[in-house]
Amino acid sequence: MKKFAVVLSGCGVFDGAEIHEATMTLYAIVKNGGTYEIFAPDIDQYHVINHYTGNETDETRNVLVESARIARGKIKDLATFNASEFDALIFPGGFGVAKNLSSFAIDGADCTVDLTVEQAVLGMVIKRKPIGALCIAPAIMAKILKGALVTIGSDKKTIAAIENMGSKHKITNHTEVVVDEKFKLVTGPCYMLDANILQIAEGAEKVVRTMMDMEI
Amino acid sequence: MKKFAVVLSGCGVFDGAEIHEATMTLYAIVKNGGTYEIFAPDIDQYHVINHYTGNETDETRNVLVESARIARGKIKDLATFNASEFDALIFPGGFGVAKNLSSFAIDGADCTVDLTVEQAVLGMVIKRKPIGALCIAPAIMAKILKGALVTIGSDKKTIAAIENMGSKHKITNHTEVVVDEKFKLVTGPCYMLDANILQIAEGAEKVVRTMMDMEI
Repeated sequence: MKKFAVVLSGCGVFDGAEIHEATMTLYAIVKNGGTYEIFAPDIDQYHVINHYTGNETDETRNVLVESARIARGKIKDLATFNASEFDALIFPGGFGVAKNLSSFAIDGADCTVDLTVEQAVLGMVIKRKPIGALCIAPAIMAKILKGALVTIGSDKKTIAAIENMGSKHKITNHTEVVVDEKFKLVTGPCYMLDANILQIAEGAEKVVRTMMDMEI
Repeated sequence: MKKFAVVLSGCGVFDGAEIHEATMTLYAIVKNGGTYEIFAPDIDQYHVINHYTGNETDETRNVLVESARIARGKIKDLATFNASEFDALIFPGGFGVAKNLSSFAIDGADCTVDLTVEQAVLGMVIKRKPIGALCIAPAIMAKILKGALVTIGSDKKTIAAIENMGSKHKITNHTEVVVDEKFKLVTGPCYMLDANILQIAEGAEKVVRTMMDMEI
């Protein structure tokens, strides 16, 4: 039984975790015989976007509280994460990764990363346990793990930022994954490409299965 | 190509649409060769629940705006729904169905149903097109379509309310569906039972496939 920790960044593609990617990640874990616990940092969102109009609102929402919507209330503060208790760690995408878990959407290659995220990732790397990242999440792995090989699909601006952070990028199409053997890091593009929900399910499952096939 | 209309009731199990059921419904439609458009009523939620603490907050949120998070912004006001343009209509569950699309969670058998929901359902019934409902959503079908045969799983209080509304209930286990041939209504229990995400995916797909197998 492989036990995954899933890190969410809110609830909704434009200011939080991408809901289809998050749900399909949970589904892929259970479908392939694993179990999961869900985590998110207890911090305010960078901002709140009205997903109907696309406009910013004047609300304040908390990343842990909103992520709990996807988790059906079963979620823990990422500050309590202990790498010893898990076999694998995975980050679904969504702008929340680039706005809440890091400042990548605002600062690009000069971004900062939330300390609880950085600690969780480093804890797994030190223990030689696999890490997965979907969509835009590979960009913050590129920041934390200098020199890592990742994919975010084919977006030129994001690729340039990843290379500016000293990491390497490989262009991929739907459902392809990239493996960095040194960091045991598995990445896939998901909605960074113009994808449908079927391709998201396949892409998330490919990342999860590749992680499971590593010696964990 | 079967074109589905999917009606959401917010974003999050305790005050809106159940996110896994909604996502798995969209997935099942595309996986089985269909397409979808997403709708929600443009009304305020009954209330907002902090999904981390379980407590009510003093916020106000709109059902259409929050549903747009699951729809990635591609959503329409349910008031614009036209039954002529679709082959099938489906309602994922979540408390939003019983708090926003209707007052079932508060008023039980004496509940009222949002007029745009009622109009959408009746439009499909008149045209003899299939309707699907997951989780608690069958309860509002029981209110709109008096005498309908539905399932919400095995919860005794909900079953009593459905029978008090003049409809019939059949107890089901995970992934079983109930078909009312007269109304072309397909219902399944999903998270009304203590289910995991794999059973939700199977349950949603069973309802979608049963709808597709009807002559539409």
